Amino acid sequence: MIVVVCLNPALDVTHQLDAVSWGGVNRPRAVHARPGGKGLNVARTLHALGADVLVLGLAGGITGAGVEASLRELGVPAAFVSVGGETRRTFTVVDGLVADGGVTAFHEAGPEVSRDEFAGFLARYQGALSGAGAMVLSGSLPPGLEAGTYATLVEAAAAAGVPAVLDAHGEALRQGAAAGPAIVKPNLAELAALAGPAASSALAARGGAELAAMAAGELGRAGAVVITLGPEGLLAATGDGCWRARIPAAVAGNATGAGDAVAAALAHGIVLGRPWDERLRHAAALGAAAAAAPVAGEFRQQDYLGALGAVAVEEVR
Amino acid sequence: MIVVVCLNPALDVTHQLDAVSWGGVNRPRAVHARPGGKGLNVARTLHALGADVLVLGLAGGITGAGVEASLRELGVPAAFVSVGGETRRTFTVVDGLVADGGVTAFHEAGPEVSRDEFAGFLARYQGALSGAGAMVLSGSLPPGLEAGTYATLVEAAAAAGVPAVLDAHGEALRQGAAAGPAIVKPNLAELAALAGPAASSALAARGGAELAAMAAGELGRAGAVVITLGPEGLLAATGDGCWRARIPAAVAGNATGAGDAVAAALAHGIVLGRPWDERLRHAAALGAAAAAAPVAGEFRQQDYLGALGAVAVEEVR
Repeated sequence: MIVVVCLNPALDVTHQLDAVSWGGVNRPRAVHARPGGKGLNVARTLHALGADVLVLGLAGGITGAGVEASLRELGVPAAFVSVGGETRRTFTVVDGLVADGGVTAFHEAGPEVSRDEFAGFLARYQGALSGAGAMVLSGSLPPGLEAGTYATLVEAAAAAGVPAVLDAHGEALRQGAAAGPAIVKPNLAELAALAGPAASSALAARGGAELAAMAAGELGRAGAVVITLGPEGLLAATGDGCWRARIPAAVAGNATGAGDAVAAALAHGIVLGRPWDERLRHAAALGAAAAAAPVAGEFRQQDYLGALGAVAVEEVR
Repeated sequence: MIVVVCLNPALDVTHQLDAVSWGGVNRPRAVHARPGGKGLNVARTLHALGADVLVLGLAGGITGAGVEASLRELGVPAAFVSVGGETRRTFTVVDGLVADGGVTAFHEAGPEVSRDEFAGFLARYQGALSGAGAMVLSGSLPPGLEAGTYATLVEAAAAAGVPAVLDAHGEALRQGAAAGPAIVKPNLAELAALAGPAASSALAARGGAELAAMAAGELGRAGAVVITLGPEGLLAATGDGCWRARIPAAVAGNATGAGDAVAAALAHGIVLGRPWDERLRHAAALGAAAAAAPVAGEFRQQDYLGALGAVAVEEVR
C-alpha cells in the first residue's frame, strides 16, 4: 500500500462563463467541483494506475466533509483526522471572453491546526506505517503546523523502514530533506529558492551532473533527488548514479498536475521494485500525460502509453 | 410552528479581498460561508425572533450537506429531502480596491429535480401541515420543477386550513397567487412584471388605494397582498381594508434581506394572531432592521426595536 499524506486538502471549484461581468451577477455555464491539493492529485493518479493507495490527512467543516465525499465518489480510500477549522476551497473563474482563457483564482487559506489535532494525525500516521510499502508527503502545510512537520513525518517513516517521497517547498522541503527521505522531488524554482538568489540564476544554465550535484548538496541527506524540469523532463541524482529522462515533444499544459504525477510514479516505482531507469521512464511519461490533461490529478491512458515509448532515459556521467 | 419551504437553498460563500488581481491568483483576507436562498433567510429571521420554525426543502450533494450542517450550527431545525443533484453555491467577491465596494457574484443553478424527488418532498410537506400554524413559500424554483409548483403547495396548505405566505416571482407567483394563499408579498418589480409593460411604468406613479386595487386585480385570489416599496415601506390590500406602513428614515442596504424579513414577520403575525395594523408595524420594522444589516437573514435587535417605535401605520381609504 502507498500512503499519501495530504495535510492541507482543498475543494477545487471551477466556474466556466461565456463572458464575465465584473461588478455584476454572473450565471456560470458549467460548474466543476473536485478534491484538490497536491497530495490528493497524487492519490488520484495512483488510484488510476491501479495502485493500492490510502490518503491520510486533516479535514474539517463543510468543505472537509465535501472533500471526503468526493474522494468516496471517486473510489479513493481516505482516512482524515477531523479538525475544528474549515478545510479550504479554491475557486477558479474561467472567462470565455478572453481569447487564451482568462483565469482568475481565489485560494482560501487552510484551517488553523492545533497541536492536539496534529498529535491525533501523528498517531494515525504511525499506525499506518506498518502496512505501507511507500509514503508520499506532498503539498503545503496548513496554518499552525511548523516547518519541521515533514521532517517529523520523514523520521517516523525512516524509523519504520518505509521509504518516503517528499514534494514540498521552502523551509518545509529543506528540513524534510535533511531528515532523510528516500526521494525528494523539487522543481527548478523550488531548488533555486533553497540554493539562494546567487545560485538560482546560474541553476537554469547548468545541466546534467552539475545541477544534480548542486541538488545533492542542498538536499544531501535524501536518498535521491529527482528534479522536474518541465518540458525538459527529469534529472535524478541517485545512489545508482545520475540519470536524465527526456520527453520528445513539449506538451503545453498543467504544470501542477505534471509534478504530482511524477511524485505518484516515483512512489509507484518503489513499491514495484523497479530500477531507476524504469522508474524515471514511468515518471516522465506519466508527467507528460498529466501535463496534457486539463485537470490536475487526471491523465488519459493513451497519452501515458504514447509517452512511455517516446521517453529517452540515459545515465549522465 | 411556522413551516418554511426552501426548494432551492444555497451555500453563500463570500471572499473579501484588499485588491482583486483579475487573471491572477488571489488570497482572500476574509471568507464567510452561510446558508442562503430566500427561504433560509426567512427561517433564520423567524428563529432569531424566537418563533418555532421548521425548514422543509430539497438538498443534495456536498453543498446540500453543507447547507444542512450550517443550519444545524445556527440551531435552525430543518428536514431536507435528499436529491441526486448538487445544491447550488453562490460565490461573491468583494474588491476592497473599489471605493464603494466592487461586488462580483457568481450564482450556480440549482440541481435538476426529478418528479420522484418532488413527490418525496410533497409527502413530507403534507405530513408537516398538521403541525403548522403558518407556512412560508419563498424563493426560486430549481430546474425541473414546474411553474405551478407553488400553486400545488398553496392548495395543499389551504385544504389543511394552514395559511400560506407566498414570496415568489413571475409565473410561479401568478399561479401560486391564483391558488389562494393567505398572503402574497411581491415587490414593485415583481408586481410590474405581472401587470405587463404598459401598466408597469404607471405603477410607480400610482400609490395608495389605486396600487393596492391593481395588485388585488393581478393577485386577486390571495387573501391579502402586501407590496414591499423599499424605503417607502409597505402597502397592504387585505380583507380588513387597505393599509400603509411608512418607515421614517430611509436605510441604505440589503434589499433581499429586507423582503425576506417582511415575509417572516407576516407569517409571525399570523401565528401570533395580531390584527393587520400590528402585523404591518412588525413587518415594516423588521424589514428596516434587516435592510440595515449587511447579511441577508440577520438583523440587530436594537435596530428592530428602534424602528418599531418609528413606523407609522395608517388605513388608506
